[in-house]
Amino acid sequence: MNKTMTACVLVIGNEILSGRTQDANIQYLATELTTLGIRLAEVRVISDDEGEIIAALNSCRAKFDYVFTTGGIGSTHDDITAASVAKAFGVAFETHPEAERILLAHYGDKANTARMRMAMMPRGAELIDNPVSTAPGFKVDNVYVFAGVPVIARAMFDTVRATLKGGPTLVVHTVSSVGVSEGMIGEDLRILQDQHPNVDIGSYPFLKSGGFGVNLVVRGADKDLVKAACMDIQGLIEGAGGTAIEGETEGEEF
Amino acid sequence: MNKTMTACVLVIGNEILSGRTQDANIQYLATELTTLGIRLAEVRVISDDEGEIIAALNSCRAKFDYVFTTGGIGSTHDDITAASVAKAFGVAFETHPEAERILLAHYGDKANTARMRMAMMPRGAELIDNPVSTAPGFKVDNVYVFAGVPVIARAMFDTVRATLKGGPTLVVHTVSSVGVSEGMIGEDLRILQDQHPNVDIGSYPFLKSGGFGVNLVVRGADKDLVKAACMDIQGLIEGAGGTAIEGETEGEEF
Repeated sequence: MNKTMTACVLVIGNEILSGRTQDANIQYLATELTTLGIRLAEVRVISDDEGEIIAALNSCRAKFDYVFTTGGIGSTHDDITAASVAKAFGVAFETHPEAERILLAHYGDKANTARMRMAMMPRGAELIDNPVSTAPGFKVDNVYVFAGVPVIARAMFDTVRATLKGGPTLVVHTVSSVGVSEGMIGEDLRILQDQHPNVDIGSYPFLKSGGFGVNLVVRGADKDLVKAACMDIQGLIEGAGGTAIEGETEGEEF
Repeated sequence: MNKTMTACVLVIGNEILSGRTQDANIQYLATELTTLGIRLAEVRVISDDEGEIIAALNSCRAKFDYVFTTGGIGSTHDDITAASVAKAFGVAFETHPEAERILLAHYGDKANTARMRMAMMPRGAELIDNPVSTAPGFKVDNVYVFAGVPVIARAMFDTVRATLKGGPTLVVHTVSSVGVSEGMIGEDLRILQDQHPNVDIGSYPFLKSGGFGVNLVVRGADKDLVKAACMDIQGLIEGAGGTAIEGETEGEEF
C-alpha cells in the first residue's frame, strides 16, 4: 500500500483571527485534497507576524508532505508572507525575473513600486500561475504560497493540482439517523466499530428543526467493507426505532 | 497599560479536515474574543487523534492565556477530547459527580453507558453549563472544552464569557476603496502607516462585480489616532481618483 500523503494549510491573516473575515479557503482546499487522496492533517490560522509565520512554516514543512499557505502576498506593507518564506528557508528574498516580466507586461506604464514588490520571492521559487489577477503565487520545496482572496486561491490550486501526488482515495458513505440520537446508539456503535476494524466510523450529531439527529460517516479503502458497515448501521438505527437515510457517497459509487 | 490577553482555538474534528463540514465556530469565537479585548492569536484544526490533541493542547496552553477547544465531547467512540485533555494534564479520567448527577436527572431511565460517558472528565474539571443539550463542557486550568455543534459551542461560550479577563478593546474602523486597488496606492499606504505608528493598517483586497477594491482596516487603542489615519487614507484614495466609502466602526463610535 502506498504511503498516505499529508498536507497542512496555513491561513495567514489577522482578518480571520479578528473575526472580521470568514475564512473561505479551508473547506475548499480540504475537499480538493481529499478528492486527490491527500490527507489534510492540520490547519493553522496565524497572524501577519514574521516570527509566527517562520515558526509555523518550519514546523509544518518538516512534518507534512505538502504545506499550502493563503494570504499575505499582495502589494502592501502588511503582506509579509513571501519575505517570511524566504527567511524560513534561509534564502535570499529578491526579484524573480520571470515574475517581474509577467508583472511588467501586465501593468505596463501602471507598474509601480508597490506592484513590483509582488515580483519579490525567495531565491529558487517556482511560479504558480494566477489567471485571475496576474501576480503569481510560488512554490519553494514542498511549500505552496497562494493569495488569500478565495477566487485567486482556488485558481492557484487549480494551477498546481495536476502536479500533486496523492494516494488512493477513500470511499466515504454517510447514513443519517433521524429520531435516534447518538446517545441512544453510542454503545452499540462502539461495538459495531470494533466489528468493522477496516473502516472508520465518525459520528456527527446535528440539531435540525429542534430535534437531534446524527450523521454516521463511514470511510474506508474497500467499497464492500464500507457498504457492509453502512448496512449494519442502518440496522442499528432502525432497531432503535429511528429512520435511517442514505446519504451521499464520495470517492466511488456503491 | 494592561497586558494583552491572548487566546487559541483548537478545532478538533476529522470532519472539518475532510472538507465534509464547514467550520462555524472560528469566526464566532474570534469576534466574541475581540469584543472582550482578548486577542485570538492562533487557530488550529487537528484530527481526532489522541497524540495530536495532547501535543496541540500542551503547546497551546503554555503559549496562550486561554485555550478553547471545540468538538469531540459527545457520547460515541470517536469522542476522545475529554480523555485526551486528562492525559495532557496528567490527571485521572473519571466520572465527575456533578456531571453524573446532571445527566442522570436529565436522561432518567434513558440514561445508558454511552450517555453516561459524557460525565467522564479530567479530575478537577470545572463544569461549563450546556443549556442546549445538557451534557456539560468543562474547564481545566486555562483550557475550556466546548462541544462542536455550533449552537452548543456558542451557548457554552456564553456561559463562561463573564469570567474571561480581557484587556482594553481596540477601536477598529474600515475605509473601503472603490475604483482604486491596493496596488495603485500601496507605496503611499506604506508611508502613511509609517506616519501613523500607533495604529495598525490592514489592507484587504476584494473582487466584487468584476472589479477590484480594497478594505483598509485601521486598528488602534486611541480613537482620535484611528480617526486621523482614516482621514489620511480617505485623502489618499480620493487623490488617486477613487471613491472612499466609510465602513463600520467597531469598539467605539467615532
